[in-house]
Amino acid sequence: MRSDGRRADETRPVKITANYNKHAEGSVLIEVGDTKVICTATIEERVPPFMKGQGKGWVTAEYSMLPRATSVRNQRESARGKLGGRTMEIQRLIGRALRSVVQLDALGERSVTLDCDVIQADGGTRTTSITGAFVAMAIAIDKLATDKKLSRFPIIDFLGSVSVGVIQEQALLDLNYDEDSKAKVDMNVVMTGSGKFVEVQGTGEESPFSRKELDELLLLAELGIQSMISEQEKVLGVISERIRGAAHAASRV
Amino acid sequence: MRSDGRRADETRPVKITANYNKHAEGSVLIEVGDTKVICTATIEERVPPFMKGQGKGWVTAEYSMLPRATSVRNQRESARGKLGGRTMEIQRLIGRALRSVVQLDALGERSVTLDCDVIQADGGTRTTSITGAFVAMAIAIDKLATDKKLSRFPIIDFLGSVSVGVIQEQALLDLNYDEDSKAKVDMNVVMTGSGKFVEVQGTGEESPFSRKELDELLLLAELGIQSMISEQEKVLGVISERIRGAAHAASRV
Amino acid sequence: MRSDGRRADETRPVKITANYNKHAEGSVLIEVGDTKVICTATIEERVPPFMKGQGKGWVTAEYSMLPRATSVRNQRESARGKLGGRTMEIQRLIGRALRSVVQLDALGERSVTLDCDVIQADGGTRTTSITGAFVAMAIAIDKLATDKKLSRFPIIDFLGSVSVGVIQEQALLDLNYDEDSKAKVDMNVVMTGSGKFVEVQGTGEESPFSRKELDELLLLAELGIQSMISEQEKVLGVISERIRGAAHAASRV
Amino acid sequence: MRSDGRRADETRPVKITANYNKHAEGSVLIEVGDTKVICTATIEERVPPFMKGQGKGWVTAEYSMLPRATSVRNQRESARGKLGGRTMEIQRLIGRALRSVVQLDALGERSVTLDCDVIQADGGTRTTSITGAFVAMAIAIDKLATDKKLSRFPIIDFLGSVSVGVIQEQALLDLNYDEDSKAKVDMNVVMTGSGKFVEVQGTGEESPFSRKELDELLLLAELGIQSMISEQEKVLGVISERIRGAAHAASRV
Amino acid sequence: MRSDGRRADETRPVKITANYNKHAEGSVLIEVGDTKVICTATIEERVPPFMKGQGKGWVTAEYSMLPRATSVRNQRESARGKLGGRTMEIQRLIGRALRSVVQLDALGERSVTLDCDVIQADGGTRTTSITGAFVAMAIAIDKLATDKKLSRFPIIDFLGSVSVGVIQEQALLDLNYDEDSKAKVDMNVVMTGSGKFVEVQGTGEESPFSRKELDELLLLAELGIQSMISEQEKVLGVISERIRGAAHAASRV
Amino acid sequence: MRSDGRRADETRPVKITANYNKHAEGSVLIEVGDTKVICTATIEERVPPFMKGQGKGWVTAEYSMLPRATSVRNQRESARGKLGGRTMEIQRLIGRALRSVVQLDALGERSVTLDCDVIQADGGTRTTSITGAFVAMAIAIDKLATDKKLSRFPIIDFLGSVSVGVIQEQALLDLNYDEDSKAKVDMNVVMTGSGKFVEVQGTGEESPFSRKELDELLLLAELGIQSMISEQEKVLGVISERIRGAAHAASRV
Repeated sequence: MRSDGRRADETRPVKITANYNKHAEGSVLIEVGDTKVICTATIEERVPPFMKGQGKGWVTAEYSMLPRATSVRNQRESARGKLGGRTMEIQRLIGRALRSVVQLDALGERSVTLDCDVIQADGGTRTTSITGAFVAMAIAIDKLATDKKLSRFPIIDFLGSVSVGVIQEQALLDLNYDEDSKAKVDMNVVMTGSGKFVEVQGTGEESPFSRKELDELLLLAELGIQSMISEQEKVLGVISERIRGAAHAASRV
Repeated sequence: MRSDGRRADETRPVKITANYNKHAEGSVLIEVGDTKVICTATIEERVPPFMKGQGKGWVTAEYSMLPRATSVRNQRESARGKLGGRTMEIQRLIGRALRSVVQLDALGERSVTLDCDVIQADGGTRTTSITGAFVAMAIAIDKLATDKKLSRFPIIDFLGSVSVGVIQEQALLDLNYDEDSKAKVDMNVVMTGSGKFVEVQGTGEESPFSRKELDELLLLAELGIQSMISEQEKVLGVISERIRGAAHAASRV
Repeated sequence: MRSDGRRADETRPVKITANYNKHAEGSVLIEVGDTKVICTATIEERVPPFMKGQGKGWVTAEYSMLPRATSVRNQRESARGKLGGRTMEIQRLIGRALRSVVQLDALGERSVTLDCDVIQADGGTRTTSITGAFVAMAIAIDKLATDKKLSRFPIIDFLGSVSVGVIQEQALLDLNYDEDSKAKVDMNVVMTGSGKFVEVQGTGEESPFSRKELDELLLLAELGIQSMISEQEKVLGVISERIRGAAHAASRV
Repeated sequence: MRSDGRRADETRPVKITANYNKHAEGSVLIEVGDTKVICTATIEERVPPFMKGQGKGWVTAEYSMLPRATSVRNQRESARGKLGGRTMEIQRLIGRALRSVVQLDALGERSVTLDCDVIQADGGTRTTSITGAFVAMAIAIDKLATDKKLSRFPIIDFLGSVSVGVIQEQALLDLNYDEDSKAKVDMNVVMTGSGKFVEVQGTGEESPFSRKELDELLLLAELGIQSMISEQEKVLGVISERIRGAAHAASRV
Repeated sequence: MRSDGRRADETRPVKITANYNKHAEGSVLIEVGDTKVICTATIEERVPPFMKGQGKGWVTAEYSMLPRATSVRNQRESARGKLGGRTMEIQRLIGRALRSVVQLDALGERSVTLDCDVIQADGGTRTTSITGAFVAMAIAIDKLATDKKLSRFPIIDFLGSVSVGVIQEQALLDLNYDEDSKAKVDMNVVMTGSGKFVEVQGTGEESPFSRKELDELLLLAELGIQSMISEQEKVLGVISERIRGAAHAASRV
Repeated sequence: MRSDGRRADETRPVKITANYNKHAEGSVLIEVGDTKVICTATIEERVPPFMKGQGKGWVTAEYSMLPRATSVRNQRESARGKLGGRTMEIQRLIGRALRSVVQLDALGERSVTLDCDVIQADGGTRTTSITGAFVAMAIAIDKLATDKKLSRFPIIDFLGSVSVGVIQEQALLDLNYDEDSKAKVDMNVVMTGSGKFVEVQGTGEESPFSRKELDELLLLAELGIQSMISEQEKVLGVISERIRGAAHAASRV
């Protein structure tokens, strides 16, 4: 029995509030337990220099935490004058993960920037950001589709993410902060709606882990991600249909 | 008649949600029309180097906007590697304003850091931040008082702020973004509950203004600030009593 | 009686030496008491990116203090690697103030950069910079006019600035450093030759101030600024005529 | 058949030259095919602030590439003024991996800094750095042991790393640069001498991967890492005995 | 005949105004032709970390140019966020040169910082800075001596500097900006009052130079530096005696 | 007799390994005693902005030391976020020196970047970098010539460099680190194959030096540089002929 009463294979309650921000092309407030992240998607009619002239779009992400997202105040990276390694690692991960389910050529020479701002942290902020950013991105890209700016719908699969870990020999799904700081093994997994892996990042700094533990963690992650994706489907409504349609079309190529 | 139907001397609806964040010692979500700011207050048992050894506390503020707080995405200052002039100017203003109603010696060698993060902007973000930060600060300092860490209550007055401006010869209270961008004269005013001025910052870059216009703007500002302060009193409840008590004690010295 | 023997409504001696620098298009050394600032105006045949293609010019300012302008050596901002908040605030103020009396469309797609370098500080460096920069700007723009590069003279009013403050219930004009550090209320005012306000920045961090005090301070400021502007007129000589002519023409539109 | 004639499960030739640098406490030049990395280990009698007073040591790493390590010259991060996200990610990975086989309390309040400088890159620079840095670290720590500065030998297992990937449905071991740029799936794995996982980082940005592919990649990685570790054992000679002894002692606790 | 009518072995007019700044412990305005530099000396009762606890003092320098010191406006290094290579090179040179004539142990654990700010540039700004900074330093250190804070006078020789160069096969003394930009060979020389070399920095980027040219340049430099030093002696008055006395004492050790 | 048994006028053993790096257009590993530097030359078909449109090329250099090139680990400049003054000074020197023997117009609108990375330091790293960089540059430019991209061979002389210094009244050639730290006078000299000076940088911070000492040092430097240049000729083989041919052609103009 976990400190908050959950079973080992149970995620915390998930709540996704769409269109949380009046300015952004797509936005959500995603809450996974006490972890709360505002994800906004911005569409811009230009791509970064290294993508110019290829007729393809780009998807990228930025991640930040408000100073009191955490129990102890963390100094702003803007005040320090540079991004920390953890931030860079996370925003590279989010961008890479989202790009795996978008056909960049179908997006045209546009970029989608996902801003993931953690307003309250309680473990799993990077995986929650990925799950939320997917929804914000889908809403924004759907507006492009509605405005007839796209030749075909570019998102070809759902994408969710959870963390898993091992505490006292026990594999657990969706660690909160308290559990995360006790875990000897910590793994973040990103998977598609069709059950394929996009990212597997497991770390056993405290204690190397066996193949058997790895297998257990991957199973739990799959379970948790399916549950995240069904929340996405609910909140996306008719947009979910378009994703499934695009997936179907892509699989026939 | 203004675009959103308000009278010239009317503020937008104000909503202050206290204890919005589970980690911070004090916190609010303040909404003034579509402008939304999360204000958190952090208490730390240390003061900056220039205040050390004086037996006094310090109050300071930081201000930031999420990238899509605005209609067009603004680049993160953390990514640019430095704070812009506007940000610095605003956070210096917020800190200075809050310190004007706190007796730093009554705080002890502690610092209160107010983080004002604009999650959606529609004009008046700096004045809204001041009004909200005051409440977050009062909640946090009240916890110190409750924990018997203070010899007397250090907040000796309420503090509210609004913007005022002149559009087509007409003085208006609490400009939204649309009005702000049309205003020839723009003024931010901070006042105490007892009706004294803490900051008056009027700018007529587009068009220098007369003494008569200045007088009209100051009257409107006073009106608006009284209304902000009555919202603060409501949400602070019993803490309001403590502020009034401290004000009374201070006035007798 | 003030420490240097002045009356409450008296400024320090003002001396403006024009053409102090052989390279700049316009330059002055301005001395207000022991405060000494070199102001140079640079004309460049280009505007910043955000102004491009509008057929209008731009006026901007930079402000800095030599390390030993002050009693205690202050570290160079170039060595610290960033501009401080105070510097940014001041240079934004100077640029904004100067733009209020320049018709940017009459300047053509050119920029005027005012560099205000304080070589000795004794209070009022920002207001002295504004008063001096106005003269340097007028000299530089007059050269453009002499060279027949302008369709009409773009400066439509004089512009002066002083600081005022309250010490022991007494409102005083043009504070020196010593007075400034004792003042409970501190206000910087910028006005035009025709007596309109361009900037009013009053701060009562130490002690909020009443409407009556505000009124007294504004009167003193007006007096002081008139005296600054008559110094400008003397040093500008025939250029003063051109400004008056442009003011007259502008008022008829 | 691969472009350089290797089998799918074959690594490139590995050469580890110990004591390559006369100043460092431990050093190697490691060559894996055309990838060449200088790894130096520096022992300092102090720990970073967050580790102070715990009686434990610290192991950390820095990673860099010479500008012409790569086919196209890459700009120095010192000239750009900041570390890129890739560099930060890699050096965090190297440090974390090395710490997993060191008992920090047995190190005493000392730090070991591993500098991994890629002088020529041809794929797998981060995994090669880990394999080489382990040897440099072992040499440096062994000197501490020889000097009787340690109560027990702190390295309790070997540590090696390889990259694996999928090209055209085929899982391959130890990708060179050419293969790496064609791979749809890319995975870096770090394992101990006793066959446990320390890091598993798999990315399918180009194409999500199945559980079956994951399993194949993990098997190849295990094979490759065993071969890296036997090179380490050869070059470490008698120091290998000490590691095995420490491993044995640790397993009995 | 040179453009300004000087002979090849003639310096421009030199004017040194002592005590130019009311705050600094020592200060001059030095003018060599149209090159004008404000040099201030700051005494602080502390030394940099690498000098602590040795009972010795430190002398260091900073160098900067106002934006319009030059014909074309140069961007502030504070705005660019970093010091350029030329600035660093010059300030290292100034500090090193001044230290060569100061007995650091006689200074006590104090530092002298020389700020050299070029307010107008016309060639030779670094050599003019050295000549001027020497005087500012002597005035400041003399105050320490007058205040009985020193066991003996620490400055043991005069120090002057000039530039020399070759234009069209002709060696010239004290190049102005115009000459400097035409010179094929450019040399900065620093010498003591007793005729020894402290720095010789000759560069023939445009055209390598012969031993014979080098010899001619060194002779001219010696001549020019003697003339700079006699200006220093005049302006220093009685302080010159103290330097000569210290030189005499030092030579007997 | 020197600590390593050399005579006063003897350099350490020199070894230049050409084509040390498989990616760079030109490269060497140069070893002078225990000082080891990797020099790579990169050809790019563009010039920096200030050289554009002149039909001429550019040669520039960057210099860095690996953290453990030195006896005590030095912090990376990339981690500190800026280049130090010493690095800037050295890389400016290397670039300037190399340009003195290249006819930039014969290079076409191309740039050659020399990266000098010190992998082990034992004195003379800047002079060794110049000697090695010359060879790397010659190899790279020769490839351009071989590819018929140049109208004539642009390198018109050899270029070598050594350090010299005075220890206990004795002038010594090619100081190692130990000697360098004891030297009262320290001089770096760069000369061409035809015996002309390109750079003379002598510093007597510890002790000003006489004209006689200067003369002795220059003689030793000439001797040492001749020996460096004969090593260059050996390793360059047939490319040496091309340089001699270009020198001959240039001397006839």
